[in-house]
Amino acid sequence: MKNEKRNSFELLRKSVNEIKTEPKNNISIVLDNIRSAQNVGSFFRTCDAFNVDKIYLCGITATPPNKEIFKTALGSTESVDWQYFETTIECIEFLKLNKFRVYGVEQTIKSIMLNNAEFDFDKINCFVFGNEVEGISAEVINLVDSCIEIPQFGTKHSLNVSVSGGIVLWDFISKMITQKI
Amino acid sequence: MKNEKRNSFELLRKSVNEIKTEPKNNISIVLDNIRSAQNVGSFFRTCDAFNVDKIYLCGITATPPNKEIFKTALGSTESVDWQYFETTIECIEFLKLNKFRVYGVEQTIKSIMLNNAEFDFDKINCFVFGNEVEGISAEVINLVDSCIEIPQFGTKHSLNVSVSGGIVLWDFISKMITQKI
Repeated sequence: MKNEKRNSFELLRKSVNEIKTEPKNNISIVLDNIRSAQNVGSFFRTCDAFNVDKIYLCGITATPPNKEIFKTALGSTESVDWQYFETTIECIEFLKLNKFRVYGVEQTIKSIMLNNAEFDFDKINCFVFGNEVEGISAEVINLVDSCIEIPQFGTKHSLNVSVSGGIVLWDFISKMITQKI
Repeated sequence: MKNEKRNSFELLRKSVNEIKTEPKNNISIVLDNIRSAQNVGSFFRTCDAFNVDKIYLCGITATPPNKEIFKTALGSTESVDWQYFETTIECIEFLKLNKFRVYGVEQTIKSIMLNNAEFDFDKINCFVFGNEVEGISAEVINLVDSCIEIPQFGTKHSLNVSVSGGIVLWDFISKMITQKI
């Protein structure tokens, strides 16, 4: 049989209403002072794909409605819940009060390599992504439960932040699928 | 002990010369008529991080030197090998002549879910990513060895192509690390 692309109907895409009422995966994203609204839009699109519980937008991170977010989010700001905090510190304190597990995605002296990370899928797992230039602020690093690092082998040691987002979300989702089988 | 970010020295970043002479991971990327030069730049940056063997740029895909690629590649066009083909078909034929394993990253009626994909780490594994709107062309889908699909649960079923790149590369690298342990 010839191989061919599946169409929208065959892909079983869900409507915004269906998505809003069904249970989410136990995963949330915190954006700590992200400079580029295009990166924010890209995070929304990835979070829609992986049925993420919520995106927390902190500090200078742009919030919807925003033309630049719209360009890369392609409508996913309607399907993904989000909340704004003036500072990332306040956000992390709120998440910890709610007994969520909070991970910073950052290269630190104590970070765990992503391939070695083990997640508790019964808890909400929150992943903090930092500013494109500065990374996660030092104060936030000292508040999170632990830091996770994407192993890198090249000259740069810095992936685009929305690419890092896709990598960490997929790592979580693939481990969750494996555990559920 | 307080947790803190590692500096450039502690990250053991490699120089372009070191990277150019050391063995690469058995993985290559094919970009099939990618419209956005920023996406191309982002692929270069991800390929630098994961020590990718080569990027094949095909059709309308922009090639270095290019101002838009430079903005998102941040110098990684110097550390990652690339080659241009006028058509993706010619490129795939070249890869198959070289006995490389060629995967399309696409949602097709026969695609294998990424979490179920098993790779032969002794061969060069090439992953084809398609145009932002059209995806991989039908002719190319019928030339590749098989198609791989990133499972998606939302309203859109379309991740940003450079985010998809990060996800597939990380899936490959993490399975390779696990196999080598």
